[in-house]
Amino acid sequence: MAAGCVIGVDLGGTKLLAGTVDSKLEVHHRAYRLARPDDTGELIDQLVETVQEAIEAAPGEVLTVGLGVPCLVDPHTGIALDSNHLPLRGVAVRDLLTERLGLPVVVDNDANAAMLVEWRCGEARGTQNAIMLTLGTGIGGGLIVEGRLVHGARGAAAELGHIIVDADGPPCPGSCPNHGCLEALVSGHAIGVEGLRVARAAPDSALGRALRSGRDVTGALVTELAHDGDPAACDVMTLMGRRLGLGVVTLVNIFNPEVVVVGGGAIAAGELLLAPAREVVASRALPINRKDVRRVPARFGAESGMLGAACMALDLAGVAIE
Amino acid sequence: MAAGCVIGVDLGGTKLLAGTVDSKLEVHHRAYRLARPDDTGELIDQLVETVQEAIEAAPGEVLTVGLGVPCLVDPHTGIALDSNHLPLRGVAVRDLLTERLGLPVVVDNDANAAMLVEWRCGEARGTQNAIMLTLGTGIGGGLIVEGRLVHGARGAAAELGHIIVDADGPPCPGSCPNHGCLEALVSGHAIGVEGLRVARAAPDSALGRALRSGRDVTGALVTELAHDGDPAACDVMTLMGRRLGLGVVTLVNIFNPEVVVVGGGAIAAGELLLAPAREVVASRALPINRKDVRRVPARFGAESGMLGAACMALDLAGVAIE
Repeated sequence: MAAGCVIGVDLGGTKLLAGTVDSKLEVHHRAYRLARPDDTGELIDQLVETVQEAIEAAPGEVLTVGLGVPCLVDPHTGIALDSNHLPLRGVAVRDLLTERLGLPVVVDNDANAAMLVEWRCGEARGTQNAIMLTLGTGIGGGLIVEGRLVHGARGAAAELGHIIVDADGPPCPGSCPNHGCLEALVSGHAIGVEGLRVARAAPDSALGRALRSGRDVTGALVTELAHDGDPAACDVMTLMGRRLGLGVVTLVNIFNPEVVVVGGGAIAAGELLLAPAREVVASRALPINRKDVRRVPARFGAESGMLGAACMALDLAGVAIE
Repeated sequence: MAAGCVIGVDLGGTKLLAGTVDSKLEVHHRAYRLARPDDTGELIDQLVETVQEAIEAAPGEVLTVGLGVPCLVDPHTGIALDSNHLPLRGVAVRDLLTERLGLPVVVDNDANAAMLVEWRCGEARGTQNAIMLTLGTGIGGGLIVEGRLVHGARGAAAELGHIIVDADGPPCPGSCPNHGCLEALVSGHAIGVEGLRVARAAPDSALGRALRSGRDVTGALVTELAHDGDPAACDVMTLMGRRLGLGVVTLVNIFNPEVVVVGGGAIAAGELLLAPAREVVASRALPINRKDVRRVPARFGAESGMLGAACMALDLAGVAIE
């Protein structure tokens, strides 16, 4: 058993996961919550309660807590600067949690956390230039450039969901003032929107029948039906994959990376999403830039955010990953 | 007088400039050429002959030569990997010039060179995160991320002209396989294309009269007439500025930079181009990311490529900029 553990927390737009993690990145306990409070106080209460469950399940001393949030975060102060999906704007998340938990806390953007663990121990290990896209309710991004995790001037870099793909495209959900962003065109939310359109247009498809039977057309449902081979659901995933590919073209031309890692809940769609994305990159990215780039699912799948937050916590505790 | 000089060379899509530069970045001589040979051998001959003019004009010993080229360049080998505008693909530019000139030569992408001098001594001085866009025949890009000039895995990073702005936009000129790139929508070439369309639609405008009198509708002509106040030419510049703004939105959201520096020949249009770009960024970029970012013309204007190449040459010679 490891001498000390940390708690890694991934706060998503709709899900909360706290893991009790040791220095080998082994997970001893997982505390899940589905709720997404609309009130800041309730959200913090839920975070504290979930982390406490993870602390109590630890086999030994808990040293530190790492938290990934779907917000722009100032890495120096731990204050959430803005958030598209949660009521955290201006909230001093790090200091609040430190006080409530009585443990040192480190906070960063959730996709930065996911990038970190994929770079340290996953699909981007050993690279100097890597890109992480997390497809969930929205799209998060993380960047390794010339061997460093990129934060930007105010901690707001790598907002890769908010690159323009279609200048005249649909409005971006949440507080982003833009339209035609990657996040407006691809994400759990966008899969649901497009799924609903296709379900209405093809009432005899499995997707159409699901709609008529009263089910919510969510990203998860479309993904499930596409895996089952429903052509209508597959069409939705192909369209999403092509749009994802447009975003990857821009990123590959900017960064000339060694690898693009795709994670987040929506990557459950796997090759249904990645194969059409690869086709678009193969036909539209600059030849040199696309030549050697790998485009792969995250090694740590839907847990990369939680494990990345654990990496941050291990760094804060001065514990090396074994 | 400085003890030793270097030669900084900016090879553009249509222009060639070699400057004799000392360690204070003072320019003692400028050798200009307009020709753009379509043959690799002739292009190298012209480069050598132009650099030799600059060497002969030096007030003292010439130490090294720096060359910025509008190509993807492998920074380790000095081989041009690809070029949209010149017949240099696969050419070992550095070794060829070293042999012909008998001096140490360093080669990099021309916009990387421009970024370097703006970062060392110009508008990006003192920043940790900065972006350079050079608007010429095409669009070049340079990036400072977390205090480093970015090259990417194979030296092909910062191809900022090839970010997608409009997924269904016009084909990108040159060897880029994409369409709807920033370069396809904004650049000296695109200003000319749009200028021609507007000149035909508004035959009584100054732009329309210029076309009827047989003049070529180039980016330079449109810029000149816009400065003179011709509404048709101004409309073209406003459209170009707005499109430029779309590209800057993507870059600001990705990098959260302190400054975006715009250089290259087309920046002669100044505020005619920058003002509409700023409006688009103000309304469409993420609020935190756009909050403090400056968007300014290059300090070194059309000479930033040549002076950046001189910086590279001074680095190679081990001479500090005074």
